[in-house]
Amino acid sequence: MEKLNILFFVSFLLFLPQLIFAQKQAVDLIVRNGTVVTMNAPKTVIENGAIAVRKSEIVAVGTVAEITQKFSSSQTIDARGKVVIPGLINAHTHIPMTLFRGIADDLDLQEWLQKYIFPAEAKNVTEDFVRVGTRLGLAEMIRGGTTTYCDMYYFEDAIADETSKAGMRGVLGETLIDFSVPDNKTFADAKIYAENFVKKWQGNTLIVPAIAPHAPYTVSEEHLMEAKTLSDKLNAPLIMHLAEAQSETDFVMKEKRMRSIEYVNKIGFLSDKLIAAHVIQANTEELEILKKFNVGIAHNPQSNMKIAAGVAPVPQMLARDLAVGLGTDGAASNNDLDMWEEMDTAAKLHKLITGDPKVLTAQQAFEMATIRGARALHLEKIIGSIEAGKRADIVVVDFDNLNQTPFYNLYSQLVYATKASDVHTVIVNGKVLMLNKRLLTLNENVIKKDANAYRQKIINSLSIK
Amino acid sequence: MEKLNILFFVSFLLFLPQLIFAQKQAVDLIVRNGTVVTMNAPKTVIENGAIAVRKSEIVAVGTVAEITQKFSSSQTIDARGKVVIPGLINAHTHIPMTLFRGIADDLDLQEWLQKYIFPAEAKNVTEDFVRVGTRLGLAEMIRGGTTTYCDMYYFEDAIADETSKAGMRGVLGETLIDFSVPDNKTFADAKIYAENFVKKWQGNTLIVPAIAPHAPYTVSEEHLMEAKTLSDKLNAPLIMHLAEAQSETDFVMKEKRMRSIEYVNKIGFLSDKLIAAHVIQANTEELEILKKFNVGIAHNPQSNMKIAAGVAPVPQMLARDLAVGLGTDGAASNNDLDMWEEMDTAAKLHKLITGDPKVLTAQQAFEMATIRGARALHLEKIIGSIEAGKRADIVVVDFDNLNQTPFYNLYSQLVYATKASDVHTVIVNGKVLMLNKRLLTLNENVIKKDANAYRQKIINSLSIK
Repeated sequence: MEKLNILFFVSFLLFLPQLIFAQKQAVDLIVRNGTVVTMNAPKTVIENGAIAVRKSEIVAVGTVAEITQKFSSSQTIDARGKVVIPGLINAHTHIPMTLFRGIADDLDLQEWLQKYIFPAEAKNVTEDFVRVGTRLGLAEMIRGGTTTYCDMYYFEDAIADETSKAGMRGVLGETLIDFSVPDNKTFADAKIYAENFVKKWQGNTLIVPAIAPHAPYTVSEEHLMEAKTLSDKLNAPLIMHLAEAQSETDFVMKEKRMRSIEYVNKIGFLSDKLIAAHVIQANTEELEILKKFNVGIAHNPQSNMKIAAGVAPVPQMLARDLAVGLGTDGAASNNDLDMWEEMDTAAKLHKLITGDPKVLTAQQAFEMATIRGARALHLEKIIGSIEAGKRADIVVVDFDNLNQTPFYNLYSQLVYATKASDVHTVIVNGKVLMLNKRLLTLNENVIKKDANAYRQKIINSLSIK
Repeated sequence: MEKLNILFFVSFLLFLPQLIFAQKQAVDLIVRNGTVVTMNAPKTVIENGAIAVRKSEIVAVGTVAEITQKFSSSQTIDARGKVVIPGLINAHTHIPMTLFRGIADDLDLQEWLQKYIFPAEAKNVTEDFVRVGTRLGLAEMIRGGTTTYCDMYYFEDAIADETSKAGMRGVLGETLIDFSVPDNKTFADAKIYAENFVKKWQGNTLIVPAIAPHAPYTVSEEHLMEAKTLSDKLNAPLIMHLAEAQSETDFVMKEKRMRSIEYVNKIGFLSDKLIAAHVIQANTEELEILKKFNVGIAHNPQSNMKIAAGVAPVPQMLARDLAVGLGTDGAASNNDLDMWEEMDTAAKLHKLITGDPKVLTAQQAFEMATIRGARALHLEKIIGSIEAGKRADIVVVDFDNLNQTPFYNLYSQLVYATKASDVHTVIVNGKVLMLNKRLLTLNENVIKKDANAYRQKIINSLSIK
């Protein structure tokens, strides 16, 4: 009896930790102690919050007390004194063009394109160029807290390969255009490339392969509809520059006796798989058309300003609850991939243009870079907010640097005062890509060395300087 | 004879080092190996350049070979792989308002002022508040490569004290205004304060004390002319908000039947000692008036956008070679003191507004933040460029970070791609204030602690949150 008691007691002691911990589910990562800006529908902000991540997925979001009661993990990230936000979404870029950053500025669009960009592309863009430029752009974007980007360029298969290797998320579109480009000599070739590319990457956890007819003024009506048919057949997004400038409107008006959006609507090109970049030349009626088809829109304020393209009617888009996100455009026309500057500029630009300082609030700008940007890419079910069931694309941001002191309003501080250099840690699909400002999946020194090797080659090819 | 020879030989040996080094002048600091962007009249850029500094003065600028042949110093700064620029000049701010950073945004000007800023100032602004806010602003500006700033606030004597202690250069104006403010209950009191302040600081190597009548709509005609008379008597700069918004134009038109600039011209207020902030409401005739008097102008693009004040006619100012610099305005309306963003925004904004991407080039924007900014503050003889005889206000900037890779065009890379966080080392008046991103004259942790103590006090005083 005595013996049995002792045995029972020993068993109890051995079992005790399991009794306590049995209720705790093991997860792969817990981010804790930060202020969690969820960007869910009610825009919940959790002071002293925590996020439990299993594999690629957010399994729970709550206070530190709630999460640590239910979950345990050997990997934790301490976000004390910091703010935890959904990863930023860059809704429009041409990532390898980082290698052309600052190659030519302060020029008319046509001179810039014809004298610099097109010749530079014709002479330099190879698969290797695209890989080097992509790695440079990925490193810059991860440093700045971007976790998803939407791209349109050539050799997009190489871009997808580099992106998935680096652990970044991308909606990546192979360009279709009516003239010979570095990877495909004809539209027909490009279409075959695009179809193979989409089939190869569809189902990948990080990459959404897409088809990117360049613009209504560079792709014929017939080819636009071929791209649309392919998109429908493969269930792949379409990415296109649309209603970007007065010159486009004039061109389409001359050719088709219609404005750009009217035209692509009339020919049956629009669908809920389209992601349209710029959308500057859009009137009320055209915004309603975009709304009807749930077209995603990428607003690129800094690029539009620099090229003097005009200002997209973003306040009207927001009033109609359109799926409008923010993009940097390519680094040859911006000249960086910094989403913090795009948020800041978007908020300020539309106040100026409307003459109303209440327009495009800090919270709306932040929303455009997160959950509304996810809607623009038609990915709002899996990214754009910190919610259970979504992919774990999470960014930890310093919040006590000099430029952020003192702190009164969360969204205001994020949009008007926080910089890319304040980003501390970046997680994509549950994997840590940057920890305490150190990139973990990309080698910064090698990237810079490779980029500088191309620099000299590009300079020689254009005989600039 | 033999002995004499030996003696001669020994003397020669002892004297030899002096023979070699005698030709070298001892200086206090040499900055070397960087690309020196002088911003002198021919805009000389020196690859592998060097700058010799004695006490507060630049004594020579040239190639490393030229400078090291002539000068020696025990203190050197290696700028290899970096760019060396004249310190940036922030032509308009209200430095203690850093403590109100983000206190209220996205509001109409009057609501912002009446509900937040004025009550917050009335309840919180003391000499200690001003000191704490000044140290916070100084630290932020030094981190971002600003070496001179032009200020307008209350307790300006305390601002001057903190500024000189930190080793920063300032044109600092005590505010004169027709209502009771934290440091002076009446205009007459403020005038006495201003006169004493100017007399106390005049002749200081870092501080240019100034008189700052607030604006044509807050200071009566009589008081404006009293300020002007005081400025003439003391030979001190005048700082004023001028032609800032349509509401000001309407007010002055109603009161005086004239537009703002016309009005201040007619009453004899204008002089070459005036530094006018904003100057948005200026027509061609009025620009000619400003030109005639050599009025300095501070353009604040981000603040003007955020408050929807309008756009200053900067391209027309540049066409007339007016003395127009760039400013951040106060951190309550921007919300930072980042001159890199102002350069970037200025260049992009005026392209958009004019519809011409060739307008306001990167070089012009950089000029506005350096030598033209010095002209705006009427200090072009001592600062704004790296030239022998000028004060040693020198900034060393990283030039191989990801966002700066690859490098094609100097001014483009500085204006469109470089960030405040790329600033490496800051020298003001020959003294190193930041070395390798470490502040040497200010304690960042204490500054943040002090600022956060005010944060709680300010929140309580306004019952926000």
